Amino acid sequence: MPLGEFDLIAKFFTRRVTRAALGVGDDCALFAPTIGMQLAVSSDMLVEGRHFLPTVAPQRLGHKALAVNLSDLAACGAAPMAFTLALALPRVDEAFLAGFAQGLLALADAHGCELIGGDTTQGPLNICITVFGEVPVGTALLRSGAQAGDDLYVSGTLGDARLALEVFRGTLALEGTAFDAVRGAMEQPTPRVALGVALRGVATSAIDVSDGLLGDLAHVLRRSGVGATVDVDAVPRSAVLRAQPLVWQRTCTLAGGDDYELVFTAAPHQADTVAAAARLAQVHVTRIGRIDAAAGLRLVDDAGCNVPNTFASFDHFNA
Amino acid sequence: MPLGEFDLIAKFFTRRVTRAALGVGDDCALFAPTIGMQLAVSSDMLVEGRHFLPTVAPQRLGHKALAVNLSDLAACGAAPMAFTLALALPRVDEAFLAGFAQGLLALADAHGCELIGGDTTQGPLNICITVFGEVPVGTALLRSGAQAGDDLYVSGTLGDARLALEVFRGTLALEGTAFDAVRGAMEQPTPRVALGVALRGVATSAIDVSDGLLGDLAHVLRRSGVGATVDVDAVPRSAVLRAQPLVWQRTCTLAGGDDYELVFTAAPHQADTVAAAARLAQVHVTRIGRIDAAAGLRLVDDAGCNVPNTFASFDHFNA
Repeated sequence: MPLGEFDLIAKFFTRRVTRAALGVGDDCALFAPTIGMQLAVSSDMLVEGRHFLPTVAPQRLGHKALAVNLSDLAACGAAPMAFTLALALPRVDEAFLAGFAQGLLALADAHGCELIGGDTTQGPLNICITVFGEVPVGTALLRSGAQAGDDLYVSGTLGDARLALEVFRGTLALEGTAFDAVRGAMEQPTPRVALGVALRGVATSAIDVSDGLLGDLAHVLRRSGVGATVDVDAVPRSAVLRAQPLVWQRTCTLAGGDDYELVFTAAPHQADTVAAAARLAQVHVTRIGRIDAAAGLRLVDDAGCNVPNTFASFDHFNA
Repeated sequence: MPLGEFDLIAKFFTRRVTRAALGVGDDCALFAPTIGMQLAVSSDMLVEGRHFLPTVAPQRLGHKALAVNLSDLAACGAAPMAFTLALALPRVDEAFLAGFAQGLLALADAHGCELIGGDTTQGPLNICITVFGEVPVGTALLRSGAQAGDDLYVSGTLGDARLALEVFRGTLALEGTAFDAVRGAMEQPTPRVALGVALRGVATSAIDVSDGLLGDLAHVLRRSGVGATVDVDAVPRSAVLRAQPLVWQRTCTLAGGDDYELVFTAAPHQADTVAAAARLAQVHVTRIGRIDAAAGLRLVDDAGCNVPNTFASFDHFNA
């Protein structure tokens, strides 16, 4: 006899909560942010074929589903507290659920982020997580704070997830450890939570790179009423990506999508503080350009020559 | 040229927020519950064919998607504050979105509940709302508080939504205003928010009826470690349902699902206070039984005779 909805919830997702007053199993979960803190909230919905491939291991999918939400908290400088999980599944598949829950809850535990509620239903596979973090009132990193003259930074490396996608699409060939590495970037991104928290009061703006660097940066520029110049050769990339043709390096780093690194701005006098924040968070950050007073996004190469911006950002309806 | 994801969000779902510090358009929304209040959080995911029929008008679907979440807040006695909306759509359909947003935001406005963030993506139609309410610390209505000797109540009438579903399924025939009335109950349920708030400190336990009265009541009994006796003929039903054969009346009221009424318990000496809360909330409440110390659910009819419990609760995986 198949497990019913309530057995499912109980078996895989019921855990004792420590920060929340009440967790999974009532009509609502109950909790409160610490006094003086604001709540930061983000929702992401993951759909097969759009946000993950049918070939992904359930454990990695569980990881990714939470990681993309934690990345939104990171972009705001918020510390993770809790999350809800709504899950539509074509059928009750215990092996899938066991793996999914394992990957999901391992990442949750690593960030002290409690599963406090949710919903399960039958339907085409769909994962919707809403995550809650907290940040001292007035210190959240926003898209709207970039100032002319600020340095422009990015964390980690960009482009590996897109490179992996192109391999799955058959556009490029890659094997062995090289493929494993970029596949890992695509399927198990690392949300830059510690960096986001360390950048409170330092970064003037931030966003996470989910739809491609240039597209996401454009949101910051529009909200902040500024422009930017980006050195496309300075955008950090892995050794695997560096071994690809330059056109793929640029496409993947500038318009790749699914990177979940942070792009942020900070005043030039904060350069040492930014470096210290990166060390504290144990992630590389690279200066890739500057914020300009003049609107628009200008791309230059290492030689200072203009590079035409032919890199379209990722759009879930027009990809 | 089709509207892109960001245009979509901007066109239909960007609104000025008043209670939240930051709404749609950044990585996270920012807000804080009032000092002394706990946050109540609930997520519900709606899938076509499971939670609504393809024939539903977009406006009604928008209403229902939020209503089922507000109903969870009502069951906790929490006052609505805000919500996030994650939406997967097969294609950009402006007429659908316009209607959906209209129904959704009209109900949101009626409850002072702000849309503060979310996500849109392409995929099989799926609507996931996470709703936030607030309730004074320690006063939330829980499933776990029912006491032996308590009276058992239900709000409104039960069973019309199931009756409408059976008409759509072709099991029963119903036309004209009778059909319109039960279809309205199915497609546009009224969350009992004011009643939930009025029952703080009065009801000892509460749950909303989403999967059928007996199934949802069973959660309360299990969590509270008690049993109950329900007078099946006392369960309130509409005139339309009362015109149906008794077996359908019982099936629809006891195991109908999609009712979104509140089932709650209160000590007998609170009967006048319960009646006052119902008047304040402008909804009928009916006493339908009592809580017993002995475990188990006993059904009796008006004559006091036992009724066998052959009514299965609604399960999204085994329906």
